[in-house]
Amino acid sequence: MTDVSKLSIGILGGTGDQGKGLARRFALAGHPVLIGSRNAQRAQEAAESIGAGATGAENADVARRADIVIVAVPYEGHKALLESLRDELAGKIVVDCVNPLGFDKKGAYALPVEEGSAAQQAAAVLPDSRVVAAFHHVSAVLLLDPEVEKVDLDVLVLGDDREATDTVQALAEAIPGVRGVYGGRLRNAHQIEALTANIISINRRYKAHAGIRITDI
Amino acid sequence: MTDVSKLSIGILGGTGDQGKGLARRFALAGHPVLIGSRNAQRAQEAAESIGAGATGAENADVARRADIVIVAVPYEGHKALLESLRDELAGKIVVDCVNPLGFDKKGAYALPVEEGSAAQQAAAVLPDSRVVAAFHHVSAVLLLDPEVEKVDLDVLVLGDDREATDTVQALAEAIPGVRGVYGGRLRNAHQIEALTANIISINRRYKAHAGIRITDI
Repeated sequence: MTDVSKLSIGILGGTGDQGKGLARRFALAGHPVLIGSRNAQRAQEAAESIGAGATGAENADVARRADIVIVAVPYEGHKALLESLRDELAGKIVVDCVNPLGFDKKGAYALPVEEGSAAQQAAAVLPDSRVVAAFHHVSAVLLLDPEVEKVDLDVLVLGDDREATDTVQALAEAIPGVRGVYGGRLRNAHQIEALTANIISINRRYKAHAGIRITDI
Repeated sequence: MTDVSKLSIGILGGTGDQGKGLARRFALAGHPVLIGSRNAQRAQEAAESIGAGATGAENADVARRADIVIVAVPYEGHKALLESLRDELAGKIVVDCVNPLGFDKKGAYALPVEEGSAAQQAAAVLPDSRVVAAFHHVSAVLLLDPEVEKVDLDVLVLGDDREATDTVQALAEAIPGVRGVYGGRLRNAHQIEALTANIISINRRYKAHAGIRITDI
């Protein structure tokens, strides 16, 4: 298992629920965590609400300083933000956890993405970064709940760079209960992002915070 | 739970591994099973190899006689076959388990489907049937292995007709070890079909017959 315990984690869009939830768990696991936002003050407020040594700064600052950068922004602003951070993110592992979803009265559904998936869009926009897709299905509610000690799911990690996916699998396991599982190449990221729509349907039907586990491994 | 124990199950493309594996488990569970094929003799041979009272016939015959019809044909012939069986399948629950996948030296990947997914294609071609999507991730190898008593996975069942999805969830549980879980509307079937490409990647990496389980339900 790759030793990732010393790596600093930056989270773009770290003031949203998903980003803040991941930030909280990585900070509790002892990682230096940098919360990014368009607004440095909002980032600092989110960092203070998390505690455990997390700090906040503007997205560009976070992208420059962190060892690994997680992208947890809404899909609408995804492409433009990454285009603006191409230099800061060059050479780094960039972990995309964005789910391009639409919502209507029948629930959630997958949005079409020209590049195939949000992760492939990130890879197209960031040719000098090592893009990995992961953390799509982790419930922000559970990540943020101080009474939830363990999160019962596998994080599927997709990418074309073996060292990068190994690193992110190890990183996922900093969250208690989580197992990091290789889930295929980046070209198969669309269905992992879109599966979040099904998980939302399952949550509604069963009144749950569902996740997935892979059997026989 | 809906009582499905008396229902007869027809399987179009029942001479392929996936169809034959499902046929075997349903026959062992006591369902009358009708194996369908373009060629009646090949269907009968497959039925004999399964035993447990399974019988074989041409696809059209099976579509007409069975209470519930499972579609387990290769994607290439999917649309044309269903178009030819519109009358036979009218009013019935039709369970699509087809995975539109391509393969190259990098592994499996999802094929685009004009209607969105194989299941939506079936629904478009069969306006008078009750189309449900299910059984995409069950390993044919495990279904066919006489030493495998239980198959460790959840079968995700998708559809827009509650009674039909309830019935297919109950049917899935005729396979020992399997739990039938509602997985969303038919418009979210694409990613469930495409997820089979990821499961193939996982099987290669981990030397496994992987399946998925939903947590927290």
